[in-house]
Amino acid sequence: MIGRLNHVAIAVPDLAAASAMYRDVLGAEVSEPLPLPGHGVTVVFVGLPNTKIELLQPLGDASPIAPFLARNPSGGMHHVCYEVDDILAARDRLKAGGARVLGDGEPKLGAHDKPVLFLHPKDFTGTLIELEQA
Amino acid sequence: MIGRLNHVAIAVPDLAAASAMYRDVLGAEVSEPLPLPGHGVTVVFVGLPNTKIELLQPLGDASPIAPFLARNPSGGMHHVCYEVDDILAARDRLKAGGARVLGDGEPKLGAHDKPVLFLHPKDFTGTLIELEQA
Repeated sequence: MIGRLNHVAIAVPDLAAASAMYRDVLGAEVSEPLPLPGHGVTVVFVGLPNTKIELLQPLGDASPIAPFLARNPSGGMHHVCYEVDDILAARDRLKAGGARVLGDGEPKLGAHDKPVLFLHPKDFTGTLIELEQA
Repeated sequence: MIGRLNHVAIAVPDLAAASAMYRDVLGAEVSEPLPLPGHGVTVVFVGLPNTKIELLQPLGDASPIAPFLARNPSGGMHHVCYEVDDILAARDRLKAGGARVLGDGEPKLGAHDKPVLFLHPKDFTGTLIELEQA
C-alpha cells in the first residue's frame, strides 16, 4: 500500500540556522523559506536525489509543531510521509487493521495541496506517519 | 555533498510486531529479521520504491540503540542516513564547518559493510545523521 517516502520532516527552532547548516555544511540544495500560515509552519525544502527533507519552523500562535519543540528544544525528526495512491482506501484499510487516524479521519489538504492524513504514533512504534495521496 | 537518503532508521522495542505492522497494516514489503551482532541490532528492511526504512531492535547487552529506547519505550525515529561519494572528504568538510563527528572520527564499516560516520545530533537540529560512502 505505501509507496514512495515523500519526505522526512524535521522540526527546528531556528530555520535560518538549520537551512544554512544543510546548505553550507552538508552541501545540499535548499529552497527559500516558504511560510504556510494555514499549516502553522514555515518550511525549507532540502532536495535530495531520491526524496526530500522538510525543515519546519513554527509559524503563528497555534503551530502544530510547537508542542514537539517544547519537548525537544534543539529540534528533531517530527514525522515521515509516505505516498499512497488512494487515501480513502488507505484510511479504510488502516482502520480495519486497528490503526488510529488522527483528527476526524477525513483527509485534509496538506502542505503540498494534496489530501493527507496523520496516523497515531502509538500505533506505529512511536513514529508520526503522514500519508499523502500521490 | 550529501546524496541520496539511504534509509530512515526507526528503533523499535518489538521487531516482530513492528514488522507485522509495516507488512500487514501499511502493506509494505519487509525482509526477514537480520541479526547484526557486531552492530548490536537486529534489522528488518522495509523496501519503498525510492529508499528504505530500517526497523532496529537491540541485540545483546551493549546495543547502541538501548539508551534511545530507554528514553523512548514505544520506539521512534533514531537516525537518517545520507550517502556521500567520499566519506573522508565529507568528514574533513564537516569538521572544517565546525560539526562534530562521533567517536574517533575514523569511518567504521556500517551495517551494509560500507564505511560510515555518525554526526553529533546537537550540531544538526537534534537529528542523528549517519553518512555512508555510496
